[in-house]
Amino acid sequence: MAGASSPDPKRRNERSRRAILEVALQLCKERGYAKLTIEAIAAEAGVGKQTIYRWWPSKGAVVAEAVLEETLPRVRFTPTGDFERDLRLQLRSIARVMREAELGPRIAELVGEAQLDPALAERITHGVIRPLRELNRQHLSRAQEAGLVRADLDLDVAADMLFGPLWFRLLLSKAPLTNRYVDALVETVLTALRPPEG
Amino acid sequence: MAGASSPDPKRRNERSRRAILEVALQLCKERGYAKLTIEAIAAEAGVGKQTIYRWWPSKGAVVAEAVLEETLPRVRFTPTGDFERDLRLQLRSIARVMREAELGPRIAELVGEAQLDPALAERITHGVIRPLRELNRQHLSRAQEAGLVRADLDLDVAADMLFGPLWFRLLLSKAPLTNRYVDALVETVLTALRPPEG
Repeated sequence: MAGASSPDPKRRNERSRRAILEVALQLCKERGYAKLTIEAIAAEAGVGKQTIYRWWPSKGAVVAEAVLEETLPRVRFTPTGDFERDLRLQLRSIARVMREAELGPRIAELVGEAQLDPALAERITHGVIRPLRELNRQHLSRAQEAGLVRADLDLDVAADMLFGPLWFRLLLSKAPLTNRYVDALVETVLTALRPPEG
Repeated sequence: MAGASSPDPKRRNERSRRAILEVALQLCKERGYAKLTIEAIAAEAGVGKQTIYRWWPSKGAVVAEAVLEETLPRVRFTPTGDFERDLRLQLRSIARVMREAELGPRIAELVGEAQLDPALAERITHGVIRPLRELNRQHLSRAQEAGLVRADLDLDVAADMLFGPLWFRLLLSKAPLTNRYVDALVETVLTALRPPEG
């Protein structure tokens, strides 16, 4: 087995890649997205700027990957079989990440940058938002099949009612994303989702 | 009455201000926000860059004012007394602006820029989003007093459920904002809003 100073280029590459992502996340948390530069990431990670540009086309791309690697495992949906409880826990986990002082503003900045950078928008919309949305849709669809959700419900509308408010608060109204708020939101949406008889 | 060539500085100022806003909106519609420069606005409006900076601190600020002057009158809420119909019409008018090929992307770009520019965020959140939200809250509150909306409803949650989905589609999922979608959204939210007996 090769030692830590192994010259194996594949392992060296993986070490550099990890170092870059860790530094990007750390510096972004400390300085905010706007003040972060590729130069600063390169210097702190001990690599050349060209090494970063070989893997990522822009500052937005490297920060997005760093932030996603940190956040996606924390909002991963793990169904327990209790539909309403799962919904509540999932929205709480998203709100928890969004209200973290070091992470929420970074996510808002990346979504902001994506409005001005079509490649980053593509990455976020098609690489993250739509796949997550599809998982939520499946969760709602299974609940619908089980008779826990009204049969005539438009699942896209339902998913937007659940997740749209969180993004609205993070990006626009800046109102707090407390657990109390999330629970009230889920409870109110569920009122619209439950079958008439339920 | 002074003629069109009046040297009255107040009127001249107002003419310059209007010319700058019209040019900013026009160029932004043509080129998109990212490619627009203060220089281009100044040249096209026939004023110096300093004239623009005297009134607005940044490109974001002048474009925001230009876009708001165009869009706010189009989404102004005019209650007719029919609560559910008014809600539908108001959301339709917002969705109509958002899906306009020349305006929707500009609004998304400005909200994006605001994530990276605290002064612009302040202008948008406190100058636009919160006052509009307050009007919606009053509309829901009157309906609640009239017994058209359940008494235990959290009005902030209800307003987020109505408007959050529109912003989510514009900024994140990029899914279409058709009238059909808006009507389905309003109808589903209303299911959660109506009193149990209704």
